Amino acid sequence: MSGNTLGKLFAVTNFGESHGPAIGCVIDGCPPGMTLSETDIQPELDRRRPGTSKFVTQRREPDQVEILSGVHEGRTTGTPICLLIRNQDQRSKDYGEIAERFRPGHADYTYWRKYGLRDPRGGGRSSARLTAPTVAAGAVARKWLRERHGTTVRGCMTQIGDLALGFESWEHVDRNPFFAPLADVSALEDYMLALRKSGDSCGARLRVTARNVPVGLGEPIYDRLDADIAHALMGLNAVKGVEIGDGFASVAQRGSQHGDSLRADPLGSFASNHDGGVLGGISTGQDLEVQIAIKPTSSILVPRQTITTTGEPVELITKGRHDPCVGIRATPIAEALLALVLMDHALRQRAQCGDVATPPGF
Amino acid sequence: MSGNTLGKLFAVTNFGESHGPAIGCVIDGCPPGMTLSETDIQPELDRRRPGTSKFVTQRREPDQVEILSGVHEGRTTGTPICLLIRNQDQRSKDYGEIAERFRPGHADYTYWRKYGLRDPRGGGRSSARLTAPTVAAGAVARKWLRERHGTTVRGCMTQIGDLALGFESWEHVDRNPFFAPLADVSALEDYMLALRKSGDSCGARLRVTARNVPVGLGEPIYDRLDADIAHALMGLNAVKGVEIGDGFASVAQRGSQHGDSLRADPLGSFASNHDGGVLGGISTGQDLEVQIAIKPTSSILVPRQTITTTGEPVELITKGRHDPCVGIRATPIAEALLALVLMDHALRQRAQCGDVATPPGF
Amino acid sequence: MSGNTLGKLFAVTNFGESHGPAIGCVIDGCPPGMTLSETDIQPELDRRRPGTSKFVTQRREPDQVEILSGVHEGRTTGTPICLLIRNQDQRSKDYGEIAERFRPGHADYTYWRKYGLRDPRGGGRSSARLTAPTVAAGAVARKWLRERHGTTVRGCMTQIGDLALGFESWEHVDRNPFFAPLADVSALEDYMLALRKSGDSCGARLRVTARNVPVGLGEPIYDRLDADIAHALMGLNAVKGVEIGDGFASVAQRGSQHGDSLRADPLGSFASNHDGGVLGGISTGQDLEVQIAIKPTSSILVPRQTITTTGEPVELITKGRHDPCVGIRATPIAEALLALVLMDHALRQRAQCGDVATPPGF
Amino acid sequence: MSGNTLGKLFAVTNFGESHGPAIGCVIDGCPPGMTLSETDIQPELDRRRPGTSKFVTQRREPDQVEILSGVHEGRTTGTPICLLIRNQDQRSKDYGEIAERFRPGHADYTYWRKYGLRDPRGGGRSSARLTAPTVAAGAVARKWLRERHGTTVRGCMTQIGDLALGFESWEHVDRNPFFAPLADVSALEDYMLALRKSGDSCGARLRVTARNVPVGLGEPIYDRLDADIAHALMGLNAVKGVEIGDGFASVAQRGSQHGDSLRADPLGSFASNHDGGVLGGISTGQDLEVQIAIKPTSSILVPRQTITTTGEPVELITKGRHDPCVGIRATPIAEALLALVLMDHALRQRAQCGDVATPPGF
Repeated sequence: MSGNTLGKLFAVTNFGESHGPAIGCVIDGCPPGMTLSETDIQPELDRRRPGTSKFVTQRREPDQVEILSGVHEGRTTGTPICLLIRNQDQRSKDYGEIAERFRPGHADYTYWRKYGLRDPRGGGRSSARLTAPTVAAGAVARKWLRERHGTTVRGCMTQIGDLALGFESWEHVDRNPFFAPLADVSALEDYMLALRKSGDSCGARLRVTARNVPVGLGEPIYDRLDADIAHALMGLNAVKGVEIGDGFASVAQRGSQHGDSLRADPLGSFASNHDGGVLGGISTGQDLEVQIAIKPTSSILVPRQTITTTGEPVELITKGRHDPCVGIRATPIAEALLALVLMDHALRQRAQCGDVATPPGF
Repeated sequence: MSGNTLGKLFAVTNFGESHGPAIGCVIDGCPPGMTLSETDIQPELDRRRPGTSKFVTQRREPDQVEILSGVHEGRTTGTPICLLIRNQDQRSKDYGEIAERFRPGHADYTYWRKYGLRDPRGGGRSSARLTAPTVAAGAVARKWLRERHGTTVRGCMTQIGDLALGFESWEHVDRNPFFAPLADVSALEDYMLALRKSGDSCGARLRVTARNVPVGLGEPIYDRLDADIAHALMGLNAVKGVEIGDGFASVAQRGSQHGDSLRADPLGSFASNHDGGVLGGISTGQDLEVQIAIKPTSSILVPRQTITTTGEPVELITKGRHDPCVGIRATPIAEALLALVLMDHALRQRAQCGDVATPPGF
Repeated sequence: MSGNTLGKLFAVTNFGESHGPAIGCVIDGCPPGMTLSETDIQPELDRRRPGTSKFVTQRREPDQVEILSGVHEGRTTGTPICLLIRNQDQRSKDYGEIAERFRPGHADYTYWRKYGLRDPRGGGRSSARLTAPTVAAGAVARKWLRERHGTTVRGCMTQIGDLALGFESWEHVDRNPFFAPLADVSALEDYMLALRKSGDSCGARLRVTARNVPVGLGEPIYDRLDADIAHALMGLNAVKGVEIGDGFASVAQRGSQHGDSLRADPLGSFASNHDGGVLGGISTGQDLEVQIAIKPTSSILVPRQTITTTGEPVELITKGRHDPCVGIRATPIAEALLALVLMDHALRQRAQCGDVATPPGF
Repeated sequence: MSGNTLGKLFAVTNFGESHGPAIGCVIDGCPPGMTLSETDIQPELDRRRPGTSKFVTQRREPDQVEILSGVHEGRTTGTPICLLIRNQDQRSKDYGEIAERFRPGHADYTYWRKYGLRDPRGGGRSSARLTAPTVAAGAVARKWLRERHGTTVRGCMTQIGDLALGFESWEHVDRNPFFAPLADVSALEDYMLALRKSGDSCGARLRVTARNVPVGLGEPIYDRLDADIAHALMGLNAVKGVEIGDGFASVAQRGSQHGDSLRADPLGSFASNHDGGVLGGISTGQDLEVQIAIKPTSSILVPRQTITTTGEPVELITKGRHDPCVGIRATPIAEALLALVLMDHALRQRAQCGDVATPPGF
């Protein structure tokens, strides 16, 4: 069935292929009356854009977004917002070989088996290029969350390959192509240059966090906030793991160590945040803390064994314009996904519990 | 809004509270014509049931399931299947204290803030008791998957606290109260006895896996199979992390190491399974491999700081009948959740791609 | 797929069969904090109940509702509300003949063809008995709408067979078994006695209306308020037509006659209500006016031609306990359905447009 | 919440405004492998297009559709199909007056109250222009239904104002601008010319029918086929009534007259079709018969009383390019909506009941 819509009340429907004429999305359910123009969205797309450093794909896409609907005289009207991004740098090359061979680690084989055919040009629908509309929609969500609740979302890289990054400051994140919270990224550059030379690729670990999240978001017992965050982020290309709060480290913890004590000053605050801002599937008001694992890029120059659509074994090298670590550009996408989940749940919460009053003092 | 339904085509709606008259679920969308009776469901409930060993809560619940609808003359009719489980062992105790104090690590505070009030008896709606209907529904899904596709789902514990378990054999799993794949669980028993003596609790890591999964399940780009698995399993009480395939270990891997080569013999098989049975959000036909992290039980005898509903700081000890490690009984639940996701996606796949033919030889 | 849930935010999932152990529903998404007990629901069930006059089926069902979940200390908790009604008067008779013959005008043939099998006892799932849970859920919606918005819903019969009823007063409606707005229903009684004598049945036309509907309900362009009302009411057993406002009479009207002029006193009122309270799919604040057509009961004593499950032609007479006009008991059901749609849209409206302020003076 | 998506498995999300840069839709869930190009869609858009006769609006829109995604080498890939139609003939006029006055019978007031603001240009989102994407999506559904099941959908006008049309033949329908099943439409032309001279407008009644509908479509008890048809068609601009089969005429019928007898030759056929192809909410395999009532156009030259956004009473005449009877162009739209509902239900049926075999002989 249809699986290209994210969110139930702030519903983002994504369309397009890597080398088709255009990609984009339709946002249905955006609250009316918010000021919105392309200039609110373009900066986020620019953060994700390819070709911005030597460590990412050299495909040249301006990723210029056009608002086709849902905005009148600079304000959202509450009707669907269609965001369109024309593809520009589709290389006219022969895709015959890729069309007939399944690249290991890619979605080639599964798309072909599921649908009986596939668009092989640049990965078609399975390309990470399709995260651009997600980022664009996320920019709309971020604006509303910030203006309505003061909620902000940000992310950074915490590990690349086997290189663990320390955390210095958020202010560094947008000043280097890795979204690393470090003043000096020369070690990362050296790491990536060596990796590229080897023709291989590596994975990454990212952190995404949200501040000033309203208390009460999440719809247990199935559509819990953490469950929907896991859904959104595991759905990002190449992600193989999602953690909330202490995540897998919780396993070895004791209950006395893990459980976050509530405090009276300020009222409703916590002494720690091992749970990462969610209890029972509902936001606590603490910072939401999420971590994701991104697998190494599957497109590498190292020769791999695979088969063809007719079942013949072949060796394959994936040339072309590829990110040696897809995690490098993933930070703005992960931020957008977290924002989209929060936005959807803010509306869900208002629908059912719009009359619930904040208790005195809290 | 409503968040108590899991699945879109095989839709399970869960209801009930820990100490209300009954818990249960309604399964809507089950294919007609399958033989079904309580005896197909009860064994799975029995595996999850409390009171079965000294390492879990001593609450005595028979968890007897009653099929109220959707089955006629022993066969599913395609109409909603209501499964009812009467609560038996609700202790009539004074919940006044718990009603006014927020237990750290529990959903007390978030439910109260979200809804403005809550049912404090035994955790009310946030109790792990509500996983029983999930397990019951999962039994129906497992039966259909097994009969229709030969798909089987099983799970086991791989770590408890800081004690890593090796893997000996699946056959041991149902022979010990830990769902451990070990012949000898005396080390686990000692570990738990010591833990209990300290009044503290610990976490666990579980593995869930599915075999003979049809190729092609999953609806990218948002409702990918791995995304929906992450949603279901992160939604299980106390889960703080979900991994598919190599999960977080993928971060430090190289692409040449991670990507699973396709093989011609047998056609469409893979040389390895680092991706855990999913590529591009679609099942490959390999074993689905999932791991989850479960945090330590929040109900402990160690005194904790917290606040009351009127904002007063207090110290709190959680007495009562609690699992010292909620992960011990979680294996059948995790299996059920994985089965429910696969069932839903099997129907979703048939809806859209029911005419796609398996290519010759595959 | 699953089609037994009505509403998206106030979601009612219906289960049960006419002669199974129980029928009921789960309401997911009810706002928390509303006082609720069985006494709020039972009166509506009693209005719909069979056996209350000689003009309806003599099946004796107390239709006693039990709240299984979602209410704590007399208030809704925001968690799923399960309402259960045990079947009492299932006749233990031989259904063999009905099981093998398709009653004309009934769902026997279509259920059998769709699902490959069916529960023949009393119509199974297709029985009008399954409207009882709808009525129960509707009682919850009506309470919230009344308390939150002052919205009230009521209905009456306007025609039975070829006998058009005039409208005298709403106060008569609950004082006769026809829900007729007439002080004297002797003409209707005579009509029905003559009909019964003939062994035949007839149809009915009902009117349902809602007062004090908030302005702004409805989600164009597809989930318009009138569209969702049409969905709900056309989904009621035996309904063959739905009208909003002037309905089919609009066809022969002129635009100058149909369009309702807006007035300044009181501000936002209208000079007429040809549109029945909806414009562009959104409520105007005027009374919602809906009419439905109900076909004659299909279970009659007049012999009919039909076929068996093996394709043999046979003659069939439907004996048993049947309503000679299913429209007689349909008024409380139609009211419930309208209330459920309004409830769902009240929450939908709050989700997206909760910040939109009523303009000064309106 | 979001209400701009029609269908659950074949899900059409509509976007755009009458005078924005573009309108369009995204179809999610289309089965893969079907040949599809713009030439499959354009003819349906051309049938609906404005400016094709003197009896409809003179707005000049080529309504040229562009497939932006979801098709590769002439076949659907199973991924979202975005259909884009650029607006061409947006008149640059002063909308100030319309922006401040509420046109009676239009959605101006309700949109403004719901969203707090609105796009007044040409009716913005509430314009009938937004039916163009629906027609485009319907063309895709019609192609699949025809190729997969031999199902065809067609419609015609049966009444305009108080002028009842007889039925001569389907072959005339596409040969006159009224979609009238008549060889000679001079009476209709005279009627419309007189109406136009009066500056007034009138309503229409349309019939839509589907042939070769698979048996078994529809998901009772709420998402019945007739319920979803009523939803889709009541959601069409200006529709005030929907009937299935004999509709409101059923009220005065006897059960012995209404119920359609089943016949053994051919097996599973019926002696009549009073129920219009649906029993118990499920298709019988007979022709689906639907009728709709369309109200008179609200934009007329006759002066009307209304109010302004500041609450002042004013008189208003609606000049501009308007259809004197919106029902004239509605036939292709109603056909598209019926096709979309059937398409969605064909996939829903396959999901749940894909294994149910047609019984021998049927």
